[in-house]
Amino acid sequence: MSQIPHWVRSLKPSGPQGSELLASERNSSKIDVAQLSKVLFTKEVLERKRKILAILQSEKIFDRSQDCFNGRIDKFEVALGRAKRLAQIFQEQNWDDVDRRFANDLISEPLPYALHESMYLVTLRNQTTPEQQEKYLKPAESYANIGCYAQTELGHGSNVRGLETTAVWNPEDKTFTLHSPHLTSAKWWIGTLGRTANHAAVMAQLIIGGKPYGPHPFIVQIRDLKTHELLPNIYAGDIGPKFGYNTMDNGFLLFNHVKIPHIAMLARYSSVDLKTNQYVRPASPTLVYGTLTWVRSTIVMQSGSVLARGVTIATRYAAVRRQFQDRDAPPHVRGENPVINYTMVQIRLLPLLATCFALHFTGKGMMQLYEANQKKMSQSRTPDQAKRHSGPEETVPGSDLLADLHATSCGLKSLSSHTAAEGLEVCRRACGGHGYSSFAGIGQWYADYLPTATWEGDNYMLTQQVARYMLKSARSVLRGVEPTNDTTNILTYYHKRADVGAAFDIIGRDEDLVAAFAWRSAYLTFEALRHRDEQKKSWNSLLVAFYRLSRAHSQYIVVKNFYETLQHQQQTAELDPETQGVLYKLFRLYALHTLESEASEFFTSAACTVRQIQLARTTAVMKLLEEVRPHAIRLVDSWDFPDYQLDSSLGRFDGNVYEDMFYRAAELNPLNRITVDPYPHNATIFKSNEANQVKGKL
Amino acid sequence: MSQIPHWVRSLKPSGPQGSELLASERNSSKIDVAQLSKVLFTKEVLERKRKILAILQSEKIFDRSQDCFNGRIDKFEVALGRAKRLAQIFQEQNWDDVDRRFANDLISEPLPYALHESMYLVTLRNQTTPEQQEKYLKPAESYANIGCYAQTELGHGSNVRGLETTAVWNPEDKTFTLHSPHLTSAKWWIGTLGRTANHAAVMAQLIIGGKPYGPHPFIVQIRDLKTHELLPNIYAGDIGPKFGYNTMDNGFLLFNHVKIPHIAMLARYSSVDLKTNQYVRPASPTLVYGTLTWVRSTIVMQSGSVLARGVTIATRYAAVRRQFQDRDAPPHVRGENPVINYTMVQIRLLPLLATCFALHFTGKGMMQLYEANQKKMSQSRTPDQAKRHSGPEETVPGSDLLADLHATSCGLKSLSSHTAAEGLEVCRRACGGHGYSSFAGIGQWYADYLPTATWEGDNYMLTQQVARYMLKSARSVLRGVEPTNDTTNILTYYHKRADVGAAFDIIGRDEDLVAAFAWRSAYLTFEALRHRDEQKKSWNSLLVAFYRLSRAHSQYIVVKNFYETLQHQQQTAELDPETQGVLYKLFRLYALHTLESEASEFFTSAACTVRQIQLARTTAVMKLLEEVRPHAIRLVDSWDFPDYQLDSSLGRFDGNVYEDMFYRAAELNPLNRITVDPYPHNATIFKSNEANQVKGKL
Repeated sequence: MSQIPHWVRSLKPSGPQGSELLASERNSSKIDVAQLSKVLFTKEVLERKRKILAILQSEKIFDRSQDCFNGRIDKFEVALGRAKRLAQIFQEQNWDDVDRRFANDLISEPLPYALHESMYLVTLRNQTTPEQQEKYLKPAESYANIGCYAQTELGHGSNVRGLETTAVWNPEDKTFTLHSPHLTSAKWWIGTLGRTANHAAVMAQLIIGGKPYGPHPFIVQIRDLKTHELLPNIYAGDIGPKFGYNTMDNGFLLFNHVKIPHIAMLARYSSVDLKTNQYVRPASPTLVYGTLTWVRSTIVMQSGSVLARGVTIATRYAAVRRQFQDRDAPPHVRGENPVINYTMVQIRLLPLLATCFALHFTGKGMMQLYEANQKKMSQSRTPDQAKRHSGPEETVPGSDLLADLHATSCGLKSLSSHTAAEGLEVCRRACGGHGYSSFAGIGQWYADYLPTATWEGDNYMLTQQVARYMLKSARSVLRGVEPTNDTTNILTYYHKRADVGAAFDIIGRDEDLVAAFAWRSAYLTFEALRHRDEQKKSWNSLLVAFYRLSRAHSQYIVVKNFYETLQHQQQTAELDPETQGVLYKLFRLYALHTLESEASEFFTSAACTVRQIQLARTTAVMKLLEEVRPHAIRLVDSWDFPDYQLDSSLGRFDGNVYEDMFYRAAELNPLNRITVDPYPHNATIFKSNEANQVKGKL
Repeated sequence: MSQIPHWVRSLKPSGPQGSELLASERNSSKIDVAQLSKVLFTKEVLERKRKILAILQSEKIFDRSQDCFNGRIDKFEVALGRAKRLAQIFQEQNWDDVDRRFANDLISEPLPYALHESMYLVTLRNQTTPEQQEKYLKPAESYANIGCYAQTELGHGSNVRGLETTAVWNPEDKTFTLHSPHLTSAKWWIGTLGRTANHAAVMAQLIIGGKPYGPHPFIVQIRDLKTHELLPNIYAGDIGPKFGYNTMDNGFLLFNHVKIPHIAMLARYSSVDLKTNQYVRPASPTLVYGTLTWVRSTIVMQSGSVLARGVTIATRYAAVRRQFQDRDAPPHVRGENPVINYTMVQIRLLPLLATCFALHFTGKGMMQLYEANQKKMSQSRTPDQAKRHSGPEETVPGSDLLADLHATSCGLKSLSSHTAAEGLEVCRRACGGHGYSSFAGIGQWYADYLPTATWEGDNYMLTQQVARYMLKSARSVLRGVEPTNDTTNILTYYHKRADVGAAFDIIGRDEDLVAAFAWRSAYLTFEALRHRDEQKKSWNSLLVAFYRLSRAHSQYIVVKNFYETLQHQQQTAELDPETQGVLYKLFRLYALHTLESEASEFFTSAACTVRQIQLARTTAVMKLLEEVRPHAIRLVDSWDFPDYQLDSSLGRFDGNVYEDMFYRAAELNPLNRITVDPYPHNATIFKSNEANQVKGKL
């Protein structure tokens, strides 16, 4: 393709320019963006992010402008290069875990070292003896060993107890034999394993004297440290392209009777006694719940930010994109209307904008609760043990507060990751046709985020945990036990009012709005309990009801957290009254929009009047859209995404949407460097060997 | 990567094999798959498909096994090669349009000739004078000219009247000057334009003597017929990668005062008089609605099949994939449960399976209605005129039946393409983690289908058409006009019963179930009318209500069509009683599941009792899931997708899911032919130059 001609370079978008439109949006609201950003993230975090951004932007390898043109192999090559360079920078700059997470957030693609730097190292830090730390942790920290965490198998995901890989104890030579008895026992989906790792932490069924003791972690070398070729009787590789996550080498791994030494079994909690050949049991089986709760709380908080990226892009573009004249506009108002003025666009974007804040505050609230709880608890506990498993076999731990937090985190993880993923796709579509372009910056982000719905507990499986906990709590209420936490509180209130009913004023009073969500959650709990305990319905026949219950209860927690943040948190109290007022509107928008989307359950639970539900739909939500709309751009600005991170033509801070779209298509797009022979009777596709040159350069 | 070791090759999946599980599923139902396929597609169509499949499978270029590994340039190269070969086969085999569509359906990727073979040729066939046919159509039919249809612009999608490209008539030399005055006037998203086309049909604002006459089509050559380089003052190229559709070269196009002759303006309907320099108006401005109605009806019918692909894959895999034991199963029942037995999986897949049939029968019904109507109408009409535009500027044509069909087709296009896209993503997720793999075969299909929500009328814009039509119909009912079609029928019934109310027995009587949907549609119509006509609310403030109304009315049409197909169609009457019975259950499942998903509107419209809505949710739908479940595999088999078309490890007819996943990952995946240097201190990524060899080979 020839250079861009001069007459093209001189063209500008028609009508008011994007920069003018965004400037006028920013002038229409007095929200203090800097102050609100500080409330969301703290000043310290914002400053650290700026510093890290500057470092990344100064190095060519972190330039993302060619990423979307690359095929799988090129994507992986670039990503591994970035991972290597980042690992060096970590050392040079002496970055801590928080800095590293910021860097990864800014780069916004899964890097091939990710599972080494997270799960492999965490496992080694938490589950090793001092001797094992010397042997495994040290070389891993220096990247001499690069590891992965190999748990799920081709035939087994959520059901960890069903794993097929075996580790048989050989008392005669004090070794274990790792073996993959079936094709379905191939480790599968393991990040960093496909091409990068030379070690693996493998979860395998421990078998001693023919008796199974359940899954345990073993460290095994899989590739030669020099040639990086597979070791004998080990077969591993990349599992192939995926809907997203293609910068990562998710891998598979099979063992053919591979002997590993006694030290390979991570032995901080359980082990095989060398002398007696007996299994040594862990002291406390419930240690893991703290970590799981923590990890899920971070997913909840991140989900707000994940979604906010899409909302930022779509909202800014909606202020720049103009389409049709307003039908009812007076004749002297000329020109096309920015689509953000259409209620059909507002109803898609503004409740999602409110959702970002709701999820962020909820995650933050949970993490504070968790930390407060940890402080109270005994120092002898090791809550960050990293044995990861999930699914129906998880049982609820003892402490009432921790139990509540654990159940809550399950339901919220499910709701929030689902909401963020769905919401991103809504944002992409709200951008019209251009949302489909890679330059929009939403599609890839959505595709890369999707696995969050599956890992750290499948979003559907988790809802069973919540339901089990709610049923258990309801049974204690029926037995007359005094309430000990928020869940038993709301269930007790509902139970006491069973013969009185409710009359929450959802539109007039914010507290009643929260209470209506609590009422619906309690209603669904006692309905499910009746089906299970009185009608003796099978667990399987109630899974759909449990899913709905979990969703309802989690929405209640979000509504409550959002409200309490505004009511009681010191940080939000420091905001100016106008900004505070807008945040209250966002709270009401989130709550009322959720209520009318789930109206059916509010109808049947009779939490409020039919008329108010109707009014929520036809009047209250529509009015809130109108009130929030002038602040939309400043509100998304407060999420503080640099253009580097958004990597989006449509979501640029300066509004130069069309210039950027055009520049990327015409100047960056390598396909335009190739001339084809278009005629069917000529079998040749490309006019010259320029194609191979272009491909070679990529 | 070394060859697959012998010990790996001998591994099999654990437990019952996929083939055994699917065989047992097929034994559990007596549905006559062959007969049901014939009802869906006709015997003739099934036979033609088989013949075409055999031809495609005999040629290496149509082998799809490497497709998912290819980067953008390779994807495009392969696709253009396939397009060329197909064009040759069309001629060799003398295929008609139906055969061609089958071939494209089987190949299942957008090919670079697509817009030439559809819109460009259709435009030339329908809008040309005999002289223009000679000059433009003939070389296009022989592929000497390869064209595209250039309508949308960087700054304008749905609003065709707002297009910025101008075609100014020059009376002095009897030419037009095509010009792109702004960057936003760049033609954008134009299929086949980016690299392939040498001609374009360009929609531009006709200007004569300074006066605008609206958008008209002009034919212009854009690339040299030999060198394929761009002609002077024309700038065009590929718009870059997208969320899907990457085998297609969607392009951009700009003009710098390009002169084209008088003959370039397609003049069958309107033209510029050479002598008087005056605009000649088209005879009838409403000619286009027939085509639009037809095109949208085909989208409705296809949406059933589009969704059925995902449902087929997810349902078969759900019968092979096993996870956890049933909690309530007696202890002697060993082994893990196929996930299709879990109600949480059933509630996601089986209503979608019912939806496939519902949409298919609805599209078919509409096409029959359209054809019947066309027959009645005067032969002088040219209904297949291809001037494509949509959006609020479409007005409703005269004939009552055609008007109804037109409005219905708008709403159904919106509902059905939305439902199919959403449903595919539900299917992908229902496959658990493996749904994320490209080998699942759903993600790419979903991504490629998404543009359907935007083209042929944006799914949101279209709902305004439906609302406008419903309001107009309701006004005529209020004026006392006798009903003339189904829409005015249901509105009249509702209006007459306004003081009586309704009491439809939605669970006991199928007719009442259909009537409840009609009631809700009428309720929302009169509610919207009150807001607009009595309360004088602005059009913009009612867009959300209009969207809901359109959705509600379209769901009514689908429910009604499904029911009537079972009641009145000769074809379904030929089915054996058991299969007919299952189809009735699918009808009820679709209708009741939709009803409970949209329960809020059924509550407020008071179409039925609160108790029945509750029972639909807790009992009726759950019971239908149980009844349909044994037939699930045979029902998806009846959609008759060959494995070649599904291109899915998870959806294989023979159930050999894990073997195929493993084969593709280990043997086909080119990334596994590359060895990396994994250490951060070594900047080199690949161990040798094998990477370039692999990339060169791709």
